[in-house]
Amino acid sequence: MSDPIRISSDKMEEVLTSLFLKYKFPKAKAQLLASTYTESTLHGVFSHGINRVPLFIEYIENGSVRVDTEAEKVESFGSIERWDGNQGPGIINAVKCTDRAIALAKEQGMGLVALRNTNHWMRGGSYARQAADAGCISILFTNTQPNMPPWGGKDSRTGNNPFVVSIPRKAGHVILDMAISQFAFGKINDYKLRGKKLPFPGGWDENDELSNDPERITLKERGLPIGYWKGSALSIILDMLATLLSAGDSTFKISQKPFETGISQVYLCIYPGILKDQDLQQRLINEIIDYTHNVEPMHPGDTTYYPGERSAQTKIKFKKEGMPVSQAVWDHVLQLSM
Amino acid sequence: MSDPIRISSDKMEEVLTSLFLKYKFPKAKAQLLASTYTESTLHGVFSHGINRVPLFIEYIENGSVRVDTEAEKVESFGSIERWDGNQGPGIINAVKCTDRAIALAKEQGMGLVALRNTNHWMRGGSYARQAADAGCISILFTNTQPNMPPWGGKDSRTGNNPFVVSIPRKAGHVILDMAISQFAFGKINDYKLRGKKLPFPGGWDENDELSNDPERITLKERGLPIGYWKGSALSIILDMLATLLSAGDSTFKISQKPFETGISQVYLCIYPGILKDQDLQQRLINEIIDYTHNVEPMHPGDTTYYPGERSAQTKIKFKKEGMPVSQAVWDHVLQLSM
Repeated sequence: MSDPIRISSDKMEEVLTSLFLKYKFPKAKAQLLASTYTESTLHGVFSHGINRVPLFIEYIENGSVRVDTEAEKVESFGSIERWDGNQGPGIINAVKCTDRAIALAKEQGMGLVALRNTNHWMRGGSYARQAADAGCISILFTNTQPNMPPWGGKDSRTGNNPFVVSIPRKAGHVILDMAISQFAFGKINDYKLRGKKLPFPGGWDENDELSNDPERITLKERGLPIGYWKGSALSIILDMLATLLSAGDSTFKISQKPFETGISQVYLCIYPGILKDQDLQQRLINEIIDYTHNVEPMHPGDTTYYPGERSAQTKIKFKKEGMPVSQAVWDHVLQLSM
Repeated sequence: MSDPIRISSDKMEEVLTSLFLKYKFPKAKAQLLASTYTESTLHGVFSHGINRVPLFIEYIENGSVRVDTEAEKVESFGSIERWDGNQGPGIINAVKCTDRAIALAKEQGMGLVALRNTNHWMRGGSYARQAADAGCISILFTNTQPNMPPWGGKDSRTGNNPFVVSIPRKAGHVILDMAISQFAFGKINDYKLRGKKLPFPGGWDENDELSNDPERITLKERGLPIGYWKGSALSIILDMLATLLSAGDSTFKISQKPFETGISQVYLCIYPGILKDQDLQQRLINEIIDYTHNVEPMHPGDTTYYPGERSAQTKIKFKKEGMPVSQAVWDHVLQLSM
């Protein structure tokens, strides 16, 4: 691999906006897509930022993502709403449903939008941040295509179903953005390209044994759930909640499609601002951060972070230095935008 | 260890009811405590069933658990309420707050009760089942005393914070009831007593290395979070949510007390019945179970279960055969009740 080139966030947004305009998105949507992909890259999540843009374009071209639709409300009861994504772009649907969950939470204390028939939201942390910026706690999750075996089973039949939580904080939001797999396949591929072993087992090899060898794990896509049987159960539960609340497609149904599309998601916002004392709230969160953060390291050089801290640091660094983008990826994106 | 004796659920409830009456609980509360401890034992969770009763009595005697108080509402906004447990028994407070979250959900679609200043709820699955029996989805969690290091840190500063979800289902509710630690310390002690190694690493040894040796892990109580850094972050997030929403004590504050008391919990119920089509809902859940269940095993003899399936099977078995209770534990409980 050649050295990455440095791209500024302004430049990336500009190029991506013209790319999405070329693909017939109206201006506001093209800008929203461009800024979301750029923000994810700025936070260091290349796999769901700039590196993912060519696949998004492919999904538009194969009809999985529709350019001319967006999510709309189907049903509502109290603080719960069911929305249909109408196969629109996952990012645009996610922003809209997060906004709606925020609005419901501000009216009623909590708001839940269950969204079916949408597409990959890319980085769930984007919408967690959106909710936190609005002063809301958020709990968001999505199902996916199958990529992990249910514990005890041989084949991948459950998804890595990202689970995302945000807690607003003045000195930097606390944001957990985790897939239920121990390692993303993108990460496993990075280790493979570098000829390294994973630090812990990450999936099963061709002999059905747990392995930390990325070469062998990638022979079959069978990722290890976090906590073995526990993550397997959590993944199944998240699929059930998303499918049930949205009356949408489960990982099973998604597995029957040629592409990962028409997925199901949940956006829950909680508005603790109504519980009055902002100072108390900040003090309570900071008390936990102070206790668990910058503590005596387990091994020399170890550091503890609060959830979301590292990606926030990455953003500051990349904003200053530019984002280290693969030359091949950037060339591909430029070519698509012409 | 001598062979366990067999106790019927009727017998256990009778003995426990008289025990709790002796400790001055009014009749209805004594019965609720007795049936909850018995149900947990019936589901195979001895550590938070019958085996835990002597410690509960100790907590009454040392003043951590107050017999004469129960949870009451402090504040409310829309579908969110803050309750204070007044140091009452965790089980009784949990049942009351779950009932309230169910009622809110039935009125408003969702209901959240954040409870502070309560005591150990024993088995979270009890309240998940209570919600599911009422037709509600529930998401429940609690903080605890510190028993796992935050990832990268040397000392235990975060709790194993059980996370519990239920989804109502006619043919048997789906119930996830998991601590964020890979293994409960009770389980690690079982392996130690049997002179066996854990099947996977479960904590750190005295040299700060991950270990599957229960002897060495129990030298210092430093449990491994599920998914390493991921579970560490999830545990911190759950502590923040419980502390913030209840304006209660965090794991940090709990660590400063001589006993694990005055903890913080969240009871969220979602009532999907309002989304009308019961048949559709059952079909959607069963579709996921059918896909992930009784599949080709990874290794000969492996079985996959849906969350909650095994404990439901255990209950049927123990209801028929009696519960295998340690003679020493039973004698201790009998002695306390006299």
